[in-house]
Amino acid sequence: MSMQPLRLRGVLSPVLTPFTDALEPDAGRFVQHCRWLTDSGVGLAVFGTNSEGNSLSVAERMKLLDAVLAAGIEPARLMPGTGCCAFPDTVELTRHAVSAGCAGVLMLPPFYYKNQSDDGLFRSYSEVIQRVGDGRLRVYLYHIPPVAQVPLGLALIERLLREYPGTIAGIKDSSGDWSNTEALLQRFQSDDFDVFCGSEVFLLPTLRGGGAGCITATGNVNPAAIADLYATWKQPGADEKQAELTATRRTFEIMPMIPSMKAAIAWKRNDAQWCNVRPPLMNAPADKAAQLREALARRGFAMPGVE
Amino acid sequence: MSMQPLRLRGVLSPVLTPFTDALEPDAGRFVQHCRWLTDSGVGLAVFGTNSEGNSLSVAERMKLLDAVLAAGIEPARLMPGTGCCAFPDTVELTRHAVSAGCAGVLMLPPFYYKNQSDDGLFRSYSEVIQRVGDGRLRVYLYHIPPVAQVPLGLALIERLLREYPGTIAGIKDSSGDWSNTEALLQRFQSDDFDVFCGSEVFLLPTLRGGGAGCITATGNVNPAAIADLYATWKQPGADEKQAELTATRRTFEIMPMIPSMKAAIAWKRNDAQWCNVRPPLMNAPADKAAQLREALARRGFAMPGVE
Repeated sequence: MSMQPLRLRGVLSPVLTPFTDALEPDAGRFVQHCRWLTDSGVGLAVFGTNSEGNSLSVAERMKLLDAVLAAGIEPARLMPGTGCCAFPDTVELTRHAVSAGCAGVLMLPPFYYKNQSDDGLFRSYSEVIQRVGDGRLRVYLYHIPPVAQVPLGLALIERLLREYPGTIAGIKDSSGDWSNTEALLQRFQSDDFDVFCGSEVFLLPTLRGGGAGCITATGNVNPAAIADLYATWKQPGADEKQAELTATRRTFEIMPMIPSMKAAIAWKRNDAQWCNVRPPLMNAPADKAAQLREALARRGFAMPGVE
Repeated sequence: MSMQPLRLRGVLSPVLTPFTDALEPDAGRFVQHCRWLTDSGVGLAVFGTNSEGNSLSVAERMKLLDAVLAAGIEPARLMPGTGCCAFPDTVELTRHAVSAGCAGVLMLPPFYYKNQSDDGLFRSYSEVIQRVGDGRLRVYLYHIPPVAQVPLGLALIERLLREYPGTIAGIKDSSGDWSNTEALLQRFQSDDFDVFCGSEVFLLPTLRGGGAGCITATGNVNPAAIADLYATWKQPGADEKQAELTATRRTFEIMPMIPSMKAAIAWKRNDAQWCNVRPPLMNAPADKAAQLREALARRGFAMPGVE
């Protein structure tokens, strides 16, 4: 069997995907953003919700991943999103990520049908794991009921972990419900199962509860400060740092996070193309973007290395 | 400009997709089922919700459609589902269907992100229509909030119809909410806009309200009787026929409709392979399948031409 890479820990960013004005993925800007993120100390959860990952075709995702790797970014920093509605797509993307040596994959359940049984969800993950059939595969389950509307409950996770130990490596909890993150941390604390919260708002309590870190939207715009809390959370001042991170995040929440963060990057990079989002999303409206810039300027917000 | 085909009316079936035991699409059984359906008087809404359409890759859908057309089934009977989360996939499938001469396409909105704005949904359909750029295109909007969780409201439909008259051709209303179907029938009665209800339970009231027909799961197993009500709805006895159709449908609802209908076909064709569904769905459990067979036998249910 081939060796598994080192386990991912710490802060990861669901990397925003830049688009040209014709709405094509822009590999050059994507690689540049990925490099800035890794230089700022965060890992790369490419093709997540905030990446508009499900707005990309399978071929587009593979091409972008290849571009990142060709640029010399370490696959050990990468956790691509690979969960699609059709399992052949999930298998293809997962195989591609594993072959490239990625540290793990973040896997949504198939999300078209709702009210699925645990048997059906177990079967979904099983089919993919068995068809990929690679000892290096590490699956991070993606629990995001507000968006996917297909929750992954504790009993299902337990069953997957017992059937596929070593392969089921952890979870991203984007429920926004701290009691669920707490329950995950408690129930699986003796397992080789890494719990990532889905927002830096919960980073400190997650780490204090034995979690592995967070995978968070704002990692795209505030990576160094979030990575700093991860590095120093046992030291004095951690609660103050957490409060500061949370306040910065709230500043972005004056509109939906994806156009908001893209507008901030467009501002800091002086590059209007960064504003582009694919439908069904809408680019940040000019008035909201102006409000965001003012609010960020008041906070002294900076993107070191970009400006 | 090329001519548009005749408009679809009447009863269409969201064609069940048969899978091999290895869960590959089975083109031979698919074509056989399509032929039985058209012979029974219903059109083919392939790759809909009951087709497990979103559980198929883009390549799998195109290959199955090609197989149906190669078998000599008229494209004028076809309304393939083409709406995906990523618009390049929607464009590719829609172009393929239009090039093949299909009478229309049934288009889900992108369904990963929830709580989308009307601007975002309008933009989603616009991008696809403009990129396909073919005067033959007829789009049937697919409103299925219980599953997609992305509703299409009246104001959005109005706006699409004004911007793309002739292209926006109608809607399948799978809300299960008769008051919504009624509102659609009333608001767009003076437009060239065809309302199909999403279940034969509403067929008679839909036709009485000026609707075009229905696109219904049970069209897969009870096509001739549903087509007969469409053909004879103005004649005496229509209410009794409607009551009978509804009772037959209820018989299938002892478990989720897709495994239920597949189990019935497996029984009538004496072909266990027909039971296969892709994850996240589960094949009909043996005990439920036995209950279904007994209940159908008690009703004297038959699939003429199959048995």
